[in-house]
Amino acid sequence: MPHVLDGVRVLDFTRVLAGPSCTRSLAEMGAEVIKIEPAPGGDLTRRISKLRGERSLYYIQQNRGKKSVCVDLRDPRGMELVASLVEKVDVVVENYRPGTMAEMGLGYEELKKRKPDVILCSISAFGQTGPLANQPGYDYIAQAYSGVTSMIGPTDDGPYMTLAALGDVNTGVQAALAVVGALRHRDRTGEGQWVEVSLLDVYYHCHEVSVHSHTGSGGQIKPTRSGRHMNYVCPAGIFRVTGGFVMIMGFLHHWKDLCAAMERPDLVTAAGWDNDLVRLERRDEVVATIERWLAGFPDVAAAVAHMQQHGVPVAPILSIEETVKHPHLVERGTVRTVKDRYAGEFQVPGFPLRFSAFPEPLPLEAATLGEHNADVVCTLLGRSREEVERLTEAGVLQQREV
Amino acid sequence: MPHVLDGVRVLDFTRVLAGPSCTRSLAEMGAEVIKIEPAPGGDLTRRISKLRGERSLYYIQQNRGKKSVCVDLRDPRGMELVASLVEKVDVVVENYRPGTMAEMGLGYEELKKRKPDVILCSISAFGQTGPLANQPGYDYIAQAYSGVTSMIGPTDDGPYMTLAALGDVNTGVQAALAVVGALRHRDRTGEGQWVEVSLLDVYYHCHEVSVHSHTGSGGQIKPTRSGRHMNYVCPAGIFRVTGGFVMIMGFLHHWKDLCAAMERPDLVTAAGWDNDLVRLERRDEVVATIERWLAGFPDVAAAVAHMQQHGVPVAPILSIEETVKHPHLVERGTVRTVKDRYAGEFQVPGFPLRFSAFPEPLPLEAATLGEHNADVVCTLLGRSREEVERLTEAGVLQQREV
Repeated sequence: MPHVLDGVRVLDFTRVLAGPSCTRSLAEMGAEVIKIEPAPGGDLTRRISKLRGERSLYYIQQNRGKKSVCVDLRDPRGMELVASLVEKVDVVVENYRPGTMAEMGLGYEELKKRKPDVILCSISAFGQTGPLANQPGYDYIAQAYSGVTSMIGPTDDGPYMTLAALGDVNTGVQAALAVVGALRHRDRTGEGQWVEVSLLDVYYHCHEVSVHSHTGSGGQIKPTRSGRHMNYVCPAGIFRVTGGFVMIMGFLHHWKDLCAAMERPDLVTAAGWDNDLVRLERRDEVVATIERWLAGFPDVAAAVAHMQQHGVPVAPILSIEETVKHPHLVERGTVRTVKDRYAGEFQVPGFPLRFSAFPEPLPLEAATLGEHNADVVCTLLGRSREEVERLTEAGVLQQREV
Repeated sequence: MPHVLDGVRVLDFTRVLAGPSCTRSLAEMGAEVIKIEPAPGGDLTRRISKLRGERSLYYIQQNRGKKSVCVDLRDPRGMELVASLVEKVDVVVENYRPGTMAEMGLGYEELKKRKPDVILCSISAFGQTGPLANQPGYDYIAQAYSGVTSMIGPTDDGPYMTLAALGDVNTGVQAALAVVGALRHRDRTGEGQWVEVSLLDVYYHCHEVSVHSHTGSGGQIKPTRSGRHMNYVCPAGIFRVTGGFVMIMGFLHHWKDLCAAMERPDLVTAAGWDNDLVRLERRDEVVATIERWLAGFPDVAAAVAHMQQHGVPVAPILSIEETVKHPHLVERGTVRTVKDRYAGEFQVPGFPLRFSAFPEPLPLEAATLGEHNADVVCTLLGRSREEVERLTEAGVLQQREV
């Protein structure tokens, strides 16, 4: 089935999450992705979330639509196969530690010898250069270095971490953007290139006012975490309601909507209440006033419904359990039901991009380990069935039933 | 100066953050972006972060490299100009509330009449359809609906919010990916389309194990926030050190590195300590053991340096103030110094994509309000200087010095 990246072929050396999120986006947009999985176990995530027999729901979520070639990368015959594949693809994506591809003989210069216009996309925690480049890194490690973690949590105690992979997944998306941009450049000029993205850069890119307000004020403003409420408008944050919490954004022109919802029109213009800056100075009192009013509702749903009627930007703070049943998320496929040959039906986060020329998501399936060994080696490299059999017997190519 | 999106022209109706993050990415990759700013004030963010006279550092951060056309959109002559521009561009990007573009006469069908292969990119909080589509939304409102907020904070109290614009910025990046993908499709087929992205979809897309572990376990697993530590491996989280906190990822094969750093080789194989699952069951004890050991270091830097020597993935939780001076972030341009005509020199988050064919970031400048009125209306639309003057006198086109 066609899609926007029709005809693009990607050789995918990525593991776990940031890299596979990049090639997931490319696959959902129609690219042919050939995932190289190191024998014997393949992608590490094949061992995680085995909730339906031996099948990993984690692997399925991130790798639908990718072909799997499982090869022993410590065997020269395995490396020869993989290196030969470079000539047949447009893009190579990897998220090894910096330097590893070169050690494997697959650095950018080597790749270029095999395929002069190749696009190499390198994804890492800290980038390919710089004092931290060789440190081991994960999502939260980069998040901590980026200053993002320091902004989450109470003013008078340590920070909290996000328990969603905001850095890994969005780094993958940024990498996909770099790849598609580089493909456009190659199609117009014949020139390939090496693009790179790091978790740290991606997290840092997300600071809204913190960096420029600190440096632009000559260091006077020192942004830090501010509890359950924003630190430059008010009211905006997480409020206590009977039985739970709600998110309310009652700043700027929404303050009058919130006052209307509270039946307190006097507060729209009252001194000390009439703009964000003065409300921010008295944040505790503003929050307490709103929470006293909220206490009159029997539950979260009643409070949210009432405020929505008055046009106040408000949301229940849904649990995971609540999200998978929410009519809006279900109707739009934000929560996507996948059917797997082995694991059956379950839900994963959908793909966020919607294309009117391709209104239906592609019907992608997750591969079993090494499922496409013969397909790729025979069809793409023109090797014989006999060679595949020999390599399989020698353990250079491997396969597993799930 | 050339870049990967050379020759792509974008008509930009976006305001504040998610939309401008999309066109920021496009501009940093070389697209010509024409930002339509509604008279009289232009983008709302021109009023925020005025730390250097009347110039908004927020506007500069998000809008470098974009041309500014300031138009009275309530005046039919203004709308006529803007509609004429559609014929001259490849892409239109907007982040109004769903339906607003159509009300303005600029819905996808109208745009297509003017430019049959146009690509329209719509960015919103909840998407163009579905029960929540018409609710007012901001980053944190979508974050609350996505379940991401519910995962942040202590187990026994309410959640915390992130104070970085992870949703807005990454929604912009996703939108840029959709645009560049759709451009490729147009270049190959001549077919334009309407692409759309929502904050809610983008946040939801970032759940790592939460959604599939809940649904794959038939609802038995109910993921929720788990304090300063991850909920499916251990140890992994935020630990107290003398004078602060550090992020440590000591799971899987890193446990033995951490044991070596602690000079506790016995714990590598001790019963109750030898794998993530058993450690997770006794998380409080594992954390307490590590924190007792950490208390022996004089400060965060000493603890981090010691663990890094042992290959443990570890990070100081840097404040914003610390990030802007950190050698790695400065050397790599993660922290980017911009020089503005009016505001002078200050730092903003850099652009995370690095292209070997274009090693230097483009030298982009932020426009003053309406700076490119004449440029765009005369050069692109072929109107006369006199017409621009007439429209300016009538207030249809407006300009300001900053």
